[in-house]
Amino acid sequence: MADAVTARADDYSQWYLDVVREAELADYSPVRGCMTIRPRGYALWERMQDTLDEMFKETGHENAYFPLFVPQSFLEREAEHVEGFAKEVALVTHSRLIESEDEDEGGLVPDPESELGEPLVVRPTSETVIWNKYADWIQSYRDLPLLINQWANVVRWEMRTRLFLRTTEFLWQEGHTAHATREGAEEETRRMLEVYRTFAEEYMAMPVLAGVKTASERFPGAVDTYCIEALMQDGKALQAGTSHFLGQNFAKAFDCTFANQDNEEEYVWATSWGVSTRLIGGLIMTHSDDQGLVLPPKLAPTQVVIVPIYFDDDQQADVMDRADALLEELSDAGIRAKLDDRDTQRPGWKFAEHELQGVPVRLGLGPRDLENGTVELARRDQDGKENVAQEGLADTLADTLADVQQGLFDQAKARREERTRVVDDYDAFQEAIAEGGFVWAHWDGTEETEARIQDETKATIRLVPLPGEAEREPGEGMLSGKPSEGRVLFAQAY
Amino acid sequence: MADAVTARADDYSQWYLDVVREAELADYSPVRGCMTIRPRGYALWERMQDTLDEMFKETGHENAYFPLFVPQSFLEREAEHVEGFAKEVALVTHSRLIESEDEDEGGLVPDPESELGEPLVVRPTSETVIWNKYADWIQSYRDLPLLINQWANVVRWEMRTRLFLRTTEFLWQEGHTAHATREGAEEETRRMLEVYRTFAEEYMAMPVLAGVKTASERFPGAVDTYCIEALMQDGKALQAGTSHFLGQNFAKAFDCTFANQDNEEEYVWATSWGVSTRLIGGLIMTHSDDQGLVLPPKLAPTQVVIVPIYFDDDQQADVMDRADALLEELSDAGIRAKLDDRDTQRPGWKFAEHELQGVPVRLGLGPRDLENGTVELARRDQDGKENVAQEGLADTLADTLADVQQGLFDQAKARREERTRVVDDYDAFQEAIAEGGFVWAHWDGTEETEARIQDETKATIRLVPLPGEAEREPGEGMLSGKPSEGRVLFAQAY
Repeated sequence: MADAVTARADDYSQWYLDVVREAELADYSPVRGCMTIRPRGYALWERMQDTLDEMFKETGHENAYFPLFVPQSFLEREAEHVEGFAKEVALVTHSRLIESEDEDEGGLVPDPESELGEPLVVRPTSETVIWNKYADWIQSYRDLPLLINQWANVVRWEMRTRLFLRTTEFLWQEGHTAHATREGAEEETRRMLEVYRTFAEEYMAMPVLAGVKTASERFPGAVDTYCIEALMQDGKALQAGTSHFLGQNFAKAFDCTFANQDNEEEYVWATSWGVSTRLIGGLIMTHSDDQGLVLPPKLAPTQVVIVPIYFDDDQQADVMDRADALLEELSDAGIRAKLDDRDTQRPGWKFAEHELQGVPVRLGLGPRDLENGTVELARRDQDGKENVAQEGLADTLADTLADVQQGLFDQAKARREERTRVVDDYDAFQEAIAEGGFVWAHWDGTEETEARIQDETKATIRLVPLPGEAEREPGEGMLSGKPSEGRVLFAQAY
Repeated sequence: MADAVTARADDYSQWYLDVVREAELADYSPVRGCMTIRPRGYALWERMQDTLDEMFKETGHENAYFPLFVPQSFLEREAEHVEGFAKEVALVTHSRLIESEDEDEGGLVPDPESELGEPLVVRPTSETVIWNKYADWIQSYRDLPLLINQWANVVRWEMRTRLFLRTTEFLWQEGHTAHATREGAEEETRRMLEVYRTFAEEYMAMPVLAGVKTASERFPGAVDTYCIEALMQDGKALQAGTSHFLGQNFAKAFDCTFANQDNEEEYVWATSWGVSTRLIGGLIMTHSDDQGLVLPPKLAPTQVVIVPIYFDDDQQADVMDRADALLEELSDAGIRAKLDDRDTQRPGWKFAEHELQGVPVRLGLGPRDLENGTVELARRDQDGKENVAQEGLADTLADTLADVQQGLFDQAKARREERTRVVDDYDAFQEAIAEGGFVWAHWDGTEETEARIQDETKATIRLVPLPGEAEREPGEGMLSGKPSEGRVLFAQAY
């Protein structure tokens, strides 16, 4: 098991796949680019869902469910939207299989008589089906704001896929809100960005920078796309969440108006925002190491595992009694603890497995611990073990878990700072990008320069920082020398 | 609002649609047979999900997620399975839209170059993709039992659809378990049937009968299909949950074997079981009335609503203070309570709306109640109102809610008993079926007789009762006079 994971320094991509496989998080499926999320991976997603869902409800949102299928004509109603998605859609064209009439061919084929009048698109995102309904539901300013979220699967026919990070089908949430005013919608867009930032930093222990995308990186159909960006251990950026101000684009496409307080008809203002199972990829690449998965305690399905140690039946009875009592004590204190009572494996093997699977704290409990009133505690984020008292163990562990959580964040933040450079000229820029990491540099604001930089360095503008997010001083674009209002953030990205 | 709902006696189908619409539970979508589940409907589904999910976890199951798409060839591996689903599958055949080259036609069309080598089926159920993976994951008896559940959307191209009861896309959970022995799998099949029965009776307050399906009603690919059946208010049966013993059929189709304790290779034994958003339809048709939705308290998203009553600002301040305090008291006691503080609507209007939407208990709180230390309490399941003391209100309400829950179950059970007949000959049978309700009758065990009865009466055999579920005495088949081991349950069904 010790050699199950390739070292990051040897082959980062292989290391990532090894961690996903060995921690039993996910698996490819026979369908191109689709994944199977295994129970350990799904338990992580459930923790993320529960946390986010509570945050969404606290900010006034309700959940609903809209159909999987989008009529092709809906997608076409918003010009930029369809342009953005037309090349990567799964199209349903038939509704029945029949025996092939071609005797050589044999087997089943789509029944030509079941061909649909209009192909259906498996939703790549749901703005269109949702705004079609909002046009029915919204009549007056009294119906606004309408604050709805959906947990769903979506499909984008990606050419190159990687487990969690980019898959043809993925799970996500998509918030879709409707507002009476531009200000209301813009405020919502930024509020949800802050919800994502809080989730990323306080739960995932993953530091992020927040900002606005340039036009070329904007969501198809959005006026502004806000994002949070994190830096992975290999120096590549990961877009971890986006929140879009959609203006009145979708309201106009679906003729969604409301009577304002003066009884005048106006188009509704819109936002949408989403995070996906991609976050699990970000979580892995932020904290994990050459020993396998590392999980922040707030999201770890199991926070503490107790491994009993004994050499004969008498010892086993005593140790198991004590272990059961400790488990109950920890569970009562709200700690997600498990007792690993499998008698098919030795303690050392169990310790190694739980390390590989990222359990934040492992406790060993043997005959000597019973005598001494101690347990042996190993933290996943540090080497070594220490003996701690059984007395007050729940309090000790609550402190330890909080310390692990903060430690992971601090470590990730220090790593990001270390790999963030501020550069002034294009030579230094190219060098910095080649080394990997975030690079702050001046850009003249044109799409041409942005495209040329991407061509030459594979770096994209991750964001234009929000006010207060980074110091902004005017300067000159690296390539053109034309004026820049302030540095923007570049990196190669997943 | 009072006339918003058609009377059941006038038009039962319209009544059902009116309740769904007026309680804002769901809405049709522009895609044929697909529905939009609105926030009020989804909140109900969330309560159902949470409850079932906890029951599944308590019985040792974990959640996972398998792909939406099933290769057509997978479906074909199990002969009965493909036969059962081939006529109602959504087929994905292309992955890209391009501008039509036909100038007259215009617009976007599926790109012929993006045609898939093999069509993908949007999952109607997931046995095949799951057993393909289980074949990888299961090596030895130590890997068994494997107890996995999935919450997902599925698609079956139904010809006639009705909100919640039968829709092209629906939400459900599907459990898929793998076992070392036939006995282990059969035990699991019955265990999950009992979980469904408990959920239906104790949470939905919907009495059910449990039994086994005849061969013609079996799940395609199953050896035995167990089910629970409920009787709706119009005398039609609703299949509310199924649990399948799949034998080794899928293990053989996907070559899933394990090494037993003697290190011999054996095929794995399987079960699958599911309930869906159809349950919401069953819930509506079991309890609701001509005034709208009626919800059992255990599943009602809001159990108690407080409606403040005041005639001037001074009164408003006093009433709202007291209402806030009561709300807090109820919430602290674990009651899902809401304060309806909208100042755009009058109290009477609010009372009517909450009645329509099925809130189990409504409380009115006005100036006179403040003087008397009372609240006015109206139960959704009974006419009239009563004054109860504010003192000890949480305890009073806990009792009331338990009483409503039990009352709904008792009422539904009495209604079922009233509409259940035991008949001996075919004339009496036809008459009983025409009147509606459950009918116990002798059947000779042949598919021919079953088909003839269905042709002539539209009644199907809902189940062969489990031992202990109903008295079983031998007799003679109604039509053929051939021997019958015991009566089986007939009804027309949704």
